[in-house]
Amino acid sequence: MDFKEKVKGAFQIAQQKICKALEEVDGKSHFSVEEWSHIEGGGGITRVIQRGNVFEKGGVNFSAVEGKMPGFMKSQVNADANLFFATGISIVIHPESPMVPIIHMNVRYFQTDAGDSWFGGGIDLTPIYIVDEQAQFFHGELKRTCDQFDIEYYPRFKNWADDYFFNEHRNETRGIGGIFYDYIKPNESISQEQLLQFSIALTDTFVDVYVPIVQENRNKPFTPSHKEWQLIRRGRYVEFNLVYDRGTKFGLETKGRIESILMSLPEFASWKYQHLVEVGSDEEYTLSKLKKGIDWLN
Amino acid sequence: MDFKEKVKGAFQIAQQKICKALEEVDGKSHFSVEEWSHIEGGGGITRVIQRGNVFEKGGVNFSAVEGKMPGFMKSQVNADANLFFATGISIVIHPESPMVPIIHMNVRYFQTDAGDSWFGGGIDLTPIYIVDEQAQFFHGELKRTCDQFDIEYYPRFKNWADDYFFNEHRNETRGIGGIFYDYIKPNESISQEQLLQFSIALTDTFVDVYVPIVQENRNKPFTPSHKEWQLIRRGRYVEFNLVYDRGTKFGLETKGRIESILMSLPEFASWKYQHLVEVGSDEEYTLSKLKKGIDWLN
Repeated sequence: MDFKEKVKGAFQIAQQKICKALEEVDGKSHFSVEEWSHIEGGGGITRVIQRGNVFEKGGVNFSAVEGKMPGFMKSQVNADANLFFATGISIVIHPESPMVPIIHMNVRYFQTDAGDSWFGGGIDLTPIYIVDEQAQFFHGELKRTCDQFDIEYYPRFKNWADDYFFNEHRNETRGIGGIFYDYIKPNESISQEQLLQFSIALTDTFVDVYVPIVQENRNKPFTPSHKEWQLIRRGRYVEFNLVYDRGTKFGLETKGRIESILMSLPEFASWKYQHLVEVGSDEEYTLSKLKKGIDWLN
Repeated sequence: MDFKEKVKGAFQIAQQKICKALEEVDGKSHFSVEEWSHIEGGGGITRVIQRGNVFEKGGVNFSAVEGKMPGFMKSQVNADANLFFATGISIVIHPESPMVPIIHMNVRYFQTDAGDSWFGGGIDLTPIYIVDEQAQFFHGELKRTCDQFDIEYYPRFKNWADDYFFNEHRNETRGIGGIFYDYIKPNESISQEQLLQFSIALTDTFVDVYVPIVQENRNKPFTPSHKEWQLIRRGRYVEFNLVYDRGTKFGLETKGRIESILMSLPEFASWKYQHLVEVGSDEEYTLSKLKKGIDWLN
């Protein structure tokens, strides 16, 4: 079997596994299933969960599309490339409770008709209220998975996430980061097969970190003022996704299925003019940690 | 007095006039006043109204800034230009009632150190529920103002608005359009002074069209389902502003004051996965009119 078919198959299986795990945690809602086709070729399966016990709106999207290389990508690939193939899983989960963090995960594989191919991906956590021990657990588990493949991955990809999941115009990270990587190609120390295994390992880690974080926070009480802060933080999430996110840009520019691309947006979000947090409040603590370069593990 | 100082002064006066008119209509809330400075030079006055009788969140921003020409603008100006001066008024008003349309207006003047200078601007209306007679009134008044300056303006700027206020990824106009224009320079038939008068006339027209539209709709009853549709339409407004709006892009790229740039976003917005409107409903009627090329006057 051709390598791209193998990746595609593995990603589809991972999508099913993740949806199953999230449905079990939620205990109420189920993921819808929409299969769709891309104008130029290929398609995907979008799975969305809404109004669950825990998850207000969440999507786990699988796609495998092909088409003409978009102009904005041309500078990054072999000049002879005209066509691309891209497959990936993309997840964003917006819980109802402000005590449960938003999470995002993406793994993807690209190849062009000029022989280029690479992997990319990332996981990042956006707590509405940062809890240091949970941040440490989250980063610790990501490091453990990365270390199994390359000891350089976690420090490198952690910094990459700090730079990537960043609202430049706010001088604020989206959340506590995680890992982000792109244009990762096989070399003497890692094969293409191992890069695929790394992607799949991350989809397992996604479940292994998020499920305990959900369980630990889901029953915490919250007030309307916690909820207000959540809607403001979600507003920042919308800003990041619409202004900077490469996956969203790629989707919009390649005329992808709009409902699948924008499933990453929360059901409700808010923008207040000059919202200020109180000195000494939990909101102020969270804001103080939305910075690049924090070493969560020490 | 130097021409740019004259424009700046006229825009500041227009800002005051507009805020006064909107406060009178609202009857409860007042505009805050924040004066700010730009890193590279100049500054502005941001005025925001919140939680009024009619206006949930609205901003009337004046700015006059200078700095290094941003890279993305270089292709549009004389190659020798390194510095820009820009002054403008930018308005977005989000009423609380879904029966009262969102409105936007912007007038602006640019000049570069290489001798280029031009005017730009626009007004567009985004009803949550389109009422044909009101759309006709709105476009009719814009045409009347345009016709006083150049008989070609309304048809040309109306089409420009259809193309500009457009969510490409949704294949949907933002609302019923209005007018949009940019890079308008003096020529044999219109002087720089007249172009300034055109900008100021538009700020008058803004008040003259919006006040009666607010009055006509403000007391109409509405249900939670009308409110739900409003939040979804506001989500589309957020998409337009963060993905396409040039003023927002310009503000973000020139490191403008973020609270002033993003005052255009509503207090609350919503995204539902695959929201469908009912056949024969008012929502379906509105959607059917979110198209380019509608002649509202005939």
